[in-house]
Amino acid sequence: MKVLRRFVYKGKDDVQMYECSLDRMKDKISTFSKFGDAGHGGITRYSLSPEAIMARNEFIKRMKAIGAEIEIDDVANIYATLPGTDPDAKRIVMASHCDSVKNGGNYDGILGVMSAMEVLETVHEKNIPHKHPLTAMIWTNEEGSLYPPAMMCSGIVCYDYLPEDIRCKFKYEDMMNSKSILDNTSTFGEALDKSGFKGDKKYRLSPDRYMYMFETHIEQGPILEDAGNDIGVVDCVLGMFNYRLKFYGQTTHAGTFPMPKRRDAFFAASQALCYLHEEIDKLGYSDLVYTTGEVVCHPCVHTCVPDFFDFSFDSRHEDPKVLEKVLAIVKSCEEKTWAGCTCKVEKAWNRDTVYWDKKLVSYVKTSAEECGIKHQYIHSGAGHDAQFAAYMLPTTMIFVQSKDGLSHCEPEYSSPEHCTEGATVMLNAVLKADND
Amino acid sequence: MKVLRRFVYKGKDDVQMYECSLDRMKDKISTFSKFGDAGHGGITRYSLSPEAIMARNEFIKRMKAIGAEIEIDDVANIYATLPGTDPDAKRIVMASHCDSVKNGGNYDGILGVMSAMEVLETVHEKNIPHKHPLTAMIWTNEEGSLYPPAMMCSGIVCYDYLPEDIRCKFKYEDMMNSKSILDNTSTFGEALDKSGFKGDKKYRLSPDRYMYMFETHIEQGPILEDAGNDIGVVDCVLGMFNYRLKFYGQTTHAGTFPMPKRRDAFFAASQALCYLHEEIDKLGYSDLVYTTGEVVCHPCVHTCVPDFFDFSFDSRHEDPKVLEKVLAIVKSCEEKTWAGCTCKVEKAWNRDTVYWDKKLVSYVKTSAEECGIKHQYIHSGAGHDAQFAAYMLPTTMIFVQSKDGLSHCEPEYSSPEHCTEGATVMLNAVLKADND
Repeated sequence: MKVLRRFVYKGKDDVQMYECSLDRMKDKISTFSKFGDAGHGGITRYSLSPEAIMARNEFIKRMKAIGAEIEIDDVANIYATLPGTDPDAKRIVMASHCDSVKNGGNYDGILGVMSAMEVLETVHEKNIPHKHPLTAMIWTNEEGSLYPPAMMCSGIVCYDYLPEDIRCKFKYEDMMNSKSILDNTSTFGEALDKSGFKGDKKYRLSPDRYMYMFETHIEQGPILEDAGNDIGVVDCVLGMFNYRLKFYGQTTHAGTFPMPKRRDAFFAASQALCYLHEEIDKLGYSDLVYTTGEVVCHPCVHTCVPDFFDFSFDSRHEDPKVLEKVLAIVKSCEEKTWAGCTCKVEKAWNRDTVYWDKKLVSYVKTSAEECGIKHQYIHSGAGHDAQFAAYMLPTTMIFVQSKDGLSHCEPEYSSPEHCTEGATVMLNAVLKADND
Repeated sequence: MKVLRRFVYKGKDDVQMYECSLDRMKDKISTFSKFGDAGHGGITRYSLSPEAIMARNEFIKRMKAIGAEIEIDDVANIYATLPGTDPDAKRIVMASHCDSVKNGGNYDGILGVMSAMEVLETVHEKNIPHKHPLTAMIWTNEEGSLYPPAMMCSGIVCYDYLPEDIRCKFKYEDMMNSKSILDNTSTFGEALDKSGFKGDKKYRLSPDRYMYMFETHIEQGPILEDAGNDIGVVDCVLGMFNYRLKFYGQTTHAGTFPMPKRRDAFFAASQALCYLHEEIDKLGYSDLVYTTGEVVCHPCVHTCVPDFFDFSFDSRHEDPKVLEKVLAIVKSCEEKTWAGCTCKVEKAWNRDTVYWDKKLVSYVKTSAEECGIKHQYIHSGAGHDAQFAAYMLPTTMIFVQSKDGLSHCEPEYSSPEHCTEGATVMLNAVLKADND
């Protein structure tokens, strides 16, 4: 473990810079990592599960201890607020989530919550003057691991501000009826009622009471580490599209049907996947990513030739023209026959690149510079609650270096030093924003 | 529908030939197709389900109506026996199963049961003299669709006669504890207790009381239809091996991880599958079949690069030397790196070619010739209960033409004429065997 650098407290413009506490951050990391500990260094902490409720209670306990006021809205988002000196000023909120994927790590989401807590704790401890109330916030069910979709409660809260084709996926009634992937029966609405965390709609994040939003998050990729930088000044969330490629063949018996007459949908999909890699890689965009992560095979029995195979195709890039070229290649799969099977390409959804608020991005950049923390601009390839909040409020994000770029898995790791640096950058950026 | 050909009742050696009833076969097909009718022309009739019990009761009702004596063994196999003229003679049994796969057809299994019933009904109706008792039999849980494995109850009954590496998969206790694939809790043993069909172990098929076994089955392939033949004289069940190919990569986030550093297990498996087809097809064996029907993908989420992908590899051929060549290609996948992933090839199981009893095969062949039914020798690519019975008793099979070679699916079809021809061939072959 490297030793935390001593920051230059007096910046070039003689600005007072503040530093968050490494020891307090370490204590939070170790405490929160217990809630949902799956026994292999990571956690499974589904939203509103007993483990998530332990994390929520710990958050409330620690925030009350520094005198923060707790509010909970109707979808269990929690807001802990330290008042500012101006009674009429709107709040500045720092938010992320405390739920995880199955067998996830100890940083995705919860680091943003711990960083927001750390900012408030530092402000309280050092008695840092601020005009605006400062709020640390937990978003409910960002991962959507147990009750899909992901980013459910930022989708609900920001509903009126979202583009129509995104909004339609977050109707309140639909969300309440979202079924558990474990039993396909119990709903998110039932879990919410049972959780004891169903509060009042009037506390929802809104432009009436809130001015800016910040979210600190692990990078979830290897770019910062490879470049030797500690902190990412995030400028946008990449545009993306999500399609399904469906292959239709004929199921026949494994032992009785001659090879030349077969129409094997899995073989068809494999051929198409190799073709996609070959053609897309020819485009030569080094910053393009595409992923085929989810598959469905039918009937998926070792004695049957598959008659249906379906995989997801997710592609992300800042430039919509690049995504158009990729999509053209994906769609060209429909024009070919693959191992005797037909292919159908279906759109699931897409989104344009969401740019963060330029002023807030500059506060983060300046804060990192003045703190002497190695940083760079970076895009977010992943979606975050901040991206929905950005339709409602000026918003930005800060990334913390991820070891080996791993996330959504147990080896996910960011050092306590990097985590504390992230909180420090957010604290000083928030204090700049407090002057607005 | 073509009209049933008139058979040559007097064969070349002046043998009396008998014909089964098309009308009675049609009635049975239409009656049994109702038990588990899934509304799209096929059935779902899991073993010991209410639908399967309806089929069992129909079998018992019809067999009692012609004076057959009913016995049920301890794993619900049912035996309906017409006595012969020799009180000391062993029984000749005709058997198949009445359970189906999910959304299966109206012929797989049940045709063998209906053919056995039809033989007994014809013997009864025409008062055909026979020395040996003749038994129509239902095997329990051949498909293993709800409670794996397939061929469960022939595995139990023939246990002592099976080769060691097959036998170890059919331990009685393990079978009773086999869990439902639907709820992963209720067991086959519980279903057996509840079914009302748990009889006495003393009635199990055994060489002490039974002399020969016949099984009539749909072909489940297009070979007879393509050759213009109605009936297959089956000479063996093909040898086969079953392996799993497992690919190990690294899961990373779909949006945040650069392409060149990815280790995508699904892409790896796709490359390997294309390689396998290319290399195995080069061997040039037109009668070789291989199938990759079952896949597992982890974590199988559209926002994650898969870190694990696993597919089954099932290959079948009469000649073990050909299977060895195929296996060498499969194993060579371990020596390569696929999209940055490692590959592990694991044996699930294999079996040697099982040849039917030569004398019984000749009875079937002669019977088809004398009846003037178009026929040919054929291998069975699929496994059947008869294959386990063959370790215990002289056994053989008769195949009936399948339309388009389809089976284990709702369009599965064999014409009533072909079905009746199958029963007719079995009847006359059994009468030849009755002279032994």
